[in-house]
Amino acid sequence: MSNATPPARVFSSDNAAGASPEIVEALVRAATGQALPYGADDLTATVRRRLGDLFEREVDVLLVSTGTAANSLSLAALTPPWGSVLCHRDSHINNDEGGAPEFYTNGAKLVPLGGADAKIDPLELRAAVRNKTGDVHSVQPSVVSITQATETGAVYGLEEVRALGAVTKDAGLRLHMDGARFAGAVAALGCTPAEVTWRAGVDLLSLGATKNGTMTADVIVVFDRTLTTELAHRGKRAGQLTSKMRYQAAQLDAYLAGDLWLRNATRANAMAARLQDGLKAIPDGELQGVTEANIVFCRLPQQVIDGLLGDGYVFYHDRWEPGIVRFVTNFTTTERDVDALLHAVGRHAGRPDARA
Amino acid sequence: MSNATPPARVFSSDNAAGASPEIVEALVRAATGQALPYGADDLTATVRRRLGDLFEREVDVLLVSTGTAANSLSLAALTPPWGSVLCHRDSHINNDEGGAPEFYTNGAKLVPLGGADAKIDPLELRAAVRNKTGDVHSVQPSVVSITQATETGAVYGLEEVRALGAVTKDAGLRLHMDGARFAGAVAALGCTPAEVTWRAGVDLLSLGATKNGTMTADVIVVFDRTLTTELAHRGKRAGQLTSKMRYQAAQLDAYLAGDLWLRNATRANAMAARLQDGLKAIPDGELQGVTEANIVFCRLPQQVIDGLLGDGYVFYHDRWEPGIVRFVTNFTTTERDVDALLHAVGRHAGRPDARA
Amino acid sequence: MSNATPPARVFSSDNAAGASPEIVEALVRAATGQALPYGADDLTATVRRRLGDLFEREVDVLLVSTGTAANSLSLAALTPPWGSVLCHRDSHINNDEGGAPEFYTNGAKLVPLGGADAKIDPLELRAAVRNKTGDVHSVQPSVVSITQATETGAVYGLEEVRALGAVTKDAGLRLHMDGARFAGAVAALGCTPAEVTWRAGVDLLSLGATKNGTMTADVIVVFDRTLTTELAHRGKRAGQLTSKMRYQAAQLDAYLAGDLWLRNATRANAMAARLQDGLKAIPDGELQGVTEANIVFCRLPQQVIDGLLGDGYVFYHDRWEPGIVRFVTNFTTTERDVDALLHAVGRHAGRPDARA
Amino acid sequence: MSNATPPARVFSSDNAAGASPEIVEALVRAATGQALPYGADDLTATVRRRLGDLFEREVDVLLVSTGTAANSLSLAALTPPWGSVLCHRDSHINNDEGGAPEFYTNGAKLVPLGGADAKIDPLELRAAVRNKTGDVHSVQPSVVSITQATETGAVYGLEEVRALGAVTKDAGLRLHMDGARFAGAVAALGCTPAEVTWRAGVDLLSLGATKNGTMTADVIVVFDRTLTTELAHRGKRAGQLTSKMRYQAAQLDAYLAGDLWLRNATRANAMAARLQDGLKAIPDGELQGVTEANIVFCRLPQQVIDGLLGDGYVFYHDRWEPGIVRFVTNFTTTERDVDALLHAVGRHAGRPDARA
Repeated sequence: MSNATPPARVFSSDNAAGASPEIVEALVRAATGQALPYGADDLTATVRRRLGDLFEREVDVLLVSTGTAANSLSLAALTPPWGSVLCHRDSHINNDEGGAPEFYTNGAKLVPLGGADAKIDPLELRAAVRNKTGDVHSVQPSVVSITQATETGAVYGLEEVRALGAVTKDAGLRLHMDGARFAGAVAALGCTPAEVTWRAGVDLLSLGATKNGTMTADVIVVFDRTLTTELAHRGKRAGQLTSKMRYQAAQLDAYLAGDLWLRNATRANAMAARLQDGLKAIPDGELQGVTEANIVFCRLPQQVIDGLLGDGYVFYHDRWEPGIVRFVTNFTTTERDVDALLHAVGRHAGRPDARA
Repeated sequence: MSNATPPARVFSSDNAAGASPEIVEALVRAATGQALPYGADDLTATVRRRLGDLFEREVDVLLVSTGTAANSLSLAALTPPWGSVLCHRDSHINNDEGGAPEFYTNGAKLVPLGGADAKIDPLELRAAVRNKTGDVHSVQPSVVSITQATETGAVYGLEEVRALGAVTKDAGLRLHMDGARFAGAVAALGCTPAEVTWRAGVDLLSLGATKNGTMTADVIVVFDRTLTTELAHRGKRAGQLTSKMRYQAAQLDAYLAGDLWLRNATRANAMAARLQDGLKAIPDGELQGVTEANIVFCRLPQQVIDGLLGDGYVFYHDRWEPGIVRFVTNFTTTERDVDALLHAVGRHAGRPDARA
Repeated sequence: MSNATPPARVFSSDNAAGASPEIVEALVRAATGQALPYGADDLTATVRRRLGDLFEREVDVLLVSTGTAANSLSLAALTPPWGSVLCHRDSHINNDEGGAPEFYTNGAKLVPLGGADAKIDPLELRAAVRNKTGDVHSVQPSVVSITQATETGAVYGLEEVRALGAVTKDAGLRLHMDGARFAGAVAALGCTPAEVTWRAGVDLLSLGATKNGTMTADVIVVFDRTLTTELAHRGKRAGQLTSKMRYQAAQLDAYLAGDLWLRNATRANAMAARLQDGLKAIPDGELQGVTEANIVFCRLPQQVIDGLLGDGYVFYHDRWEPGIVRFVTNFTTTERDVDALLHAVGRHAGRPDARA
Repeated sequence: MSNATPPARVFSSDNAAGASPEIVEALVRAATGQALPYGADDLTATVRRRLGDLFEREVDVLLVSTGTAANSLSLAALTPPWGSVLCHRDSHINNDEGGAPEFYTNGAKLVPLGGADAKIDPLELRAAVRNKTGDVHSVQPSVVSITQATETGAVYGLEEVRALGAVTKDAGLRLHMDGARFAGAVAALGCTPAEVTWRAGVDLLSLGATKNGTMTADVIVVFDRTLTTELAHRGKRAGQLTSKMRYQAAQLDAYLAGDLWLRNATRANAMAARLQDGLKAIPDGELQGVTEANIVFCRLPQQVIDGLLGDGYVFYHDRWEPGIVRFVTNFTTTERDVDALLHAVGRHAGRPDARA
């Protein structure tokens, strides 16, 4: 997309969206005056307290600059270098971090598992958690990492997380949640953040604020607080300890205040649902998998894909089988944006108004 | 310091300062609309072009979130794991990065050298660059890292950088400049940025924007562009590739526009000079080392230290010998702030007005 | 197996075998007198010369203590940390090194490919060598590693190695050969060592002497001699630079002298062929895959497995599907040993003499 | 030295010596027959039992191929990557391992301390063990490593080890002993191995067999057995798990049987003492430091150095100040060898018979 692309036509990723106005304002407020560096400021303390309230227990926090860092630091604290990380074969940590988990962990091995909708299959997990335990010739199963919502827009149900958590804990492993779209998952489930994380066995959560409204701030929520000191040292070593941390904290503070995180995610989910709904009417189209958060996968005729690209729409279509398309909504997407997209799809499919 | 500490009394570090108003405004402007992620946005392209103009040649850039990351990534691209990094024994990379250079380089060894004012002694360097070259039992000298301005506020003169650069290059090593206070050094030297960097042999520069006006953005300026691809992969692996990179780029764009970087540094330097000047009049006080940038080291009687702390002043005084104090000015420091500090020093020293 | 197990009944692994008498004698000869340490001795020079003769070109050598070290050091010299190693999913480096390749490479990723008989499928390789090239979010295909003979006892034909080598080189990747059973492969192919290695594109070869007659010595044969210095530094850092290297060199010298390596492998192969032949007559048994070197996989009725174990036979049978058994012969295996095993199998299968 | 150099004239290093005849014989005995691989053989069990007897308590053992591996693996198990290793500035791990400790520990920092005779000064240690504890900007003191006997041939007295051990333990750090010349130290002290190791606080000991009679076998003696599992995984990952481990075990078994280790070391020490004694008579010569084990440092006139080199003597003389020479004796050195050397020294010094 060129920078002239109208935002209304960008469905490529939620990281193309800007920042929530509340977050921008908070940053401006934080910008004046002096503050103690390295997280000793008041705003960072507030973020920790807000997350404690949200998760209904005391937590520690580690502010980081990217989701890659949140995930990789978490994994490094949960596995020894000779351990393995059990994850879905389609997971971001397995495919899209450029080997960051391997770098941070000093060479732990990511073991890919299968399962529908990018959710780990519990039976595969059950076999994997004890694979070659105690055998010095093999890496040792050490941590399970699940993505909530998943890379395909599905959401692990509460019982599903609990079941994976139980398998993990029974075998003595640790549980990490890549919450790249955690807010969307909570919005979809209607449960409390506590229920779907530490109460279900999660030790560390990558909160995933960037795709849902912040600029450059993410955070590891530390439920197992025995890991906090290690995370702090690892974070510093990784260049993740920001001197002017208040600027990350200000973003997260506004993100958490007044349930902005939930409102943003709810909107993104609703727009994806609206899009999904409309796509059902496309002839020769076919929804792919389940959409519970803000990602819609579908199959479209080539003429429709070409037509949309010609209209200036931005979306991924060349990464999977031919004809498979991914649309991602975000907290700035409007009903009008969705309807315009559906109208365009219908037009290119030879059906003047798919929603009419 | 509590957050109630008046900014005027904070002389602990330049990272306690907020952001320049121009930078805050640029961030607000960048916050709306959508943009391509991962540095494919227009602002990042502009930063690269601006740095090319500033350094009078084509450069590549790698935006990072911290100075620790800028330094450690640079070193990782300049030394193999079995290499050594020749640096001053008082350098930040040797003492204050929590082992980040060792992590990023996969275990290269930092070899500390001596020299006055935290500048590497050229004779020591000359011996070190060829130390055990080719001996498999020893780490191999691979990169020299100099801090400009130094950790004590001194500035390498142009001839000094050229001399170290020549020793480095003659021996086939690479040259890294930790520009934590690069703007201050350029302001002090009155030279061009090009002269004191690549024209003197510098391969990679950590620009050091955070201490001089930005919020959470720093950048590696890549003079040796054969390193760019490696830096990009290493940066991603380290969790330094920001998805919404425009927010870092916006800060740097404003930092470079209209010579804001130079104006900020010039003010910080002038305030340090004013402070230094005033301190000369303190009985039993004694300036320590040379101040050319924005750091002043001096020896003060204990009663003066205690008195200043009692007044709410914030500064380091417990890290070196008893009585040694460090004051750091920044781009927000005013003449009034400096004069008030001097007045207080004079008062506690039993000399009602040191500047009178 | 207890140490009382008669050697004739050990078919578990070729590393259960002792050392060739010629090698023991060479070690005894080398044990007296003084010698320069760290490979500056005469025997190490001789090994290098012998390998040059064998491979019909100048080579460098790096003596190591284990096959794990030979493979992992080689891979570390052939891939950057952000690279990937394309290998068969059943390969030793992927499953049985306890993560050593990941440790030595500082976190490169092993990408498992499929293919019959543990040989990499050329079509899969063709797709994998260019997978996400240039995409900073993904590890970068850097080196292909093939095992010769494979983990199931099959041997890549000369044309097969050439084809994989061509795909590898066309894409700009490097080629490593894990020669754990290299001698057996050469014996089976009847080609020259040069043809099946560097002439087909192999950059580094793990020679694989331990399974074929030496005690504690293995060696990396360096065809791409630009890698030698790096390998030397990496080897030292990994604790692989032996001070009294003559004791490893003595073993390898004897291994190479008078084609001992080839004679040993020829015997082991012949014994596996004899075993395979005999097993064809077992009712309810079934040979699995191709046996060209010294490994035989077959399916046996449970009563036969139990009967053999009761007789004191040692072999793997519990690592794959139920009923699948692996027998490994070695250079000490005799016709009588094989025939006794076949007789026992026949007896337990209810067929008094399978070979009769 | 060329291989024609008479062994009697080699005083360069104890690793130039061959193997003890008892050890060669043991290896020959072990060479026949089959044995379980990877340390499940009887000989490895015997080594463990023998070391338990020697150290008067149950110990675990990790057989390795080099002293570099023994030291580096030990350190990796005793420090996190963000830790520091406190060691003498002249220690082997700091200067002569090519960065292996940094590789194995994933980038821990070696912090060099001073002290006479290459022994760590207890006052320096006392300051260093608590340096910046809890400060995330600094590496964290984690392990103290002492070399016994030291790199200059001195021996820590029992009280000295206890004192360093107490400082180490009081601060919550771990203690590693690089026993490169441990046998020589025990011989010199006349104490039990237990007294000078675990009873004084040592957690892990690199036994140091190679310089004192074995070929290619060394061993980590594990007093803190909670580290055993980690060491096993780290050892495998480092390529140190030998498949035919019985060949290392056979060497160590013979080394420990009948106090061979002690007899060898006693001889080497006695020869060094004889040499030291004789050197006292050299005009213009000067003994350097203390010799308690098998290393003698002295200053010799240049004409003497040149004369000895002309005679074919092999020794280090070019690594320190001009005129400083190191002679190392070993378990094969005879009185006649020493007297011949002394005679040669005397002759070149213009004093026909220094011993006469």
